[in-house]
Amino acid sequence: MSWGVIATWRMAFEGTALASEVLKAGGSASDAAQELVENVENNPDFRSVGFGGLPNEEGVLEMDAAFMDGDTFKIGAVAGIQDVANPIAVARKLSDEKFNSFRIGAGATKYAEEAGFERKEMLTSEAHEIWAKRVAEVTEKNLNPYDGHDTVGVVSLDSFVSMTAATSSSGLFMKKAGRVGDSPLSGSGFYVDSEIGGASATGLGEDLMKGCLSYEIVRLMGEGLSPQSACDKAVYDFAEKLTKRYGKCGAMSLIAMNNKGEWGVATNVEFPFCAANAENEPAVYIANPGPNKTTLIKKATKEWLDSHGFD
Amino acid sequence: MSWGVIATWRMAFEGTALASEVLKAGGSASDAAQELVENVENNPDFRSVGFGGLPNEEGVLEMDAAFMDGDTFKIGAVAGIQDVANPIAVARKLSDEKFNSFRIGAGATKYAEEAGFERKEMLTSEAHEIWAKRVAEVTEKNLNPYDGHDTVGVVSLDSFVSMTAATSSSGLFMKKAGRVGDSPLSGSGFYVDSEIGGASATGLGEDLMKGCLSYEIVRLMGEGLSPQSACDKAVYDFAEKLTKRYGKCGAMSLIAMNNKGEWGVATNVEFPFCAANAENEPAVYIANPGPNKTTLIKKATKEWLDSHGFD
Repeated sequence: MSWGVIATWRMAFEGTALASEVLKAGGSASDAAQELVENVENNPDFRSVGFGGLPNEEGVLEMDAAFMDGDTFKIGAVAGIQDVANPIAVARKLSDEKFNSFRIGAGATKYAEEAGFERKEMLTSEAHEIWAKRVAEVTEKNLNPYDGHDTVGVVSLDSFVSMTAATSSSGLFMKKAGRVGDSPLSGSGFYVDSEIGGASATGLGEDLMKGCLSYEIVRLMGEGLSPQSACDKAVYDFAEKLTKRYGKCGAMSLIAMNNKGEWGVATNVEFPFCAANAENEPAVYIANPGPNKTTLIKKATKEWLDSHGFD
Repeated sequence: MSWGVIATWRMAFEGTALASEVLKAGGSASDAAQELVENVENNPDFRSVGFGGLPNEEGVLEMDAAFMDGDTFKIGAVAGIQDVANPIAVARKLSDEKFNSFRIGAGATKYAEEAGFERKEMLTSEAHEIWAKRVAEVTEKNLNPYDGHDTVGVVSLDSFVSMTAATSSSGLFMKKAGRVGDSPLSGSGFYVDSEIGGASATGLGEDLMKGCLSYEIVRLMGEGLSPQSACDKAVYDFAEKLTKRYGKCGAMSLIAMNNKGEWGVATNVEFPFCAANAENEPAVYIANPGPNKTTLIKKATKEWLDSHGFD
């Protein structure tokens, strides 16, 4: 039986191991994806997702999440939700709604409350302290505040050939109130079709949504490209086009998996990610842009793992 | 010199005529698109966009809008914005931001205020009355409340071969607080590349975002398909796929224009729209799904125009 899971950033490693256990035991791609994302959301050491995530410019923690089922294309999403323990659980629940399945701001928070999701003060004192220090630095040194945007994105495949894509993020560090990136946006932050495969993105949401790269990668896999070729083609062609037409291109890192459990990654910055499938144990890999629109990928060494935090 | 504009629904007719004047006089695609959308936003008789739009389930008018420049791919968008006269103007202004260019809810409203956009009570007493009556009907007769979702979407081309896509909507009638549809979502509600063409959508946003059809239509035009062939292929193939996989497919109507000013439309419901280009005066057309994944399009007759309201 084939199964697989791929997820963005080193912070997804523990979740990838948990998702692998779910999938190995015959669990669903949706349960595996949710378990992975919740593990990241619940860890207060991860500063860009869920509990312990960094707040917006005003000191308020606003979170985005999305869930897509590749069998039916059903999507649930939230943006700017507050005080809920697991935004991904809310997004998944919303995916069952035929109407009103993408909710934002106070309406999203209200939905979560009424649907009985756990209310939780998500801003930790540690995150608040980092934020306050950063606010002071940015002001004093006149820095560009927007330097962190690490979404957890996942694509999972179960042994019934069902696939799921999911994302969760507290968004761009020091974002303005109500700023939304690509994470909750279909086609940009995620896309999945169980008859083909799925993809998810992390990086500068403002630029990612200019390219609809998750949709494009799935489409290219549908034309017969391997996940790696699809990622390389979509990401490097668009990064080149955006640089030419817009004058710049923010960080963009895309992961993909097809419905055989094969995966691929492309990125214009150093990008750690996690993957596992029936043949390969959960591991952390490092991707870097290579020559001629290719991607260099190697397993993270013990030294790298020891010397790097959860970034 | 070639130029052109296409827009959704009959309500866009007056705006299409205004946009045509802008383009004929050598004005920009962006100015033409904004003028068209603002004309619809400003008219209190149109119940699904801007001033006079119908409020959400709680009686609050929340609006969505987006603006995309096809030269640079820059995008600005708002969702759930309140009390601002022209959401499209806010979205256009946001498209100049490299960060924080998609704002939602209170954060979007705050941005508009701080940027000096006109504050305006957008809920008219007429709209409130229609809403109150409908609330009573839905409750008494246990009706499905979600029967209106007419976004104004536009694609424009100027004589410098620059293109713009723009949308504005008060969203699904009787939507829950904070519900967002496809209108502000890149790739779903709109997409444009001045080297190819642009597309925009109206219909059930929850289903439109499952297909990323605006992106797909632009992509197909980039492969050499005519706007009409691109619309037919993208819309009818996806409607069929969604019906098979999800069990149903909501209303979806897509408009497209390439950078020669040729246009196309596909729809799974009767769908009036407006178009004009250098060869053809502004006119209202009616599209209907035809046999074998084609679209039947005819000019609206005087009888049709006389007997139909602004729907």
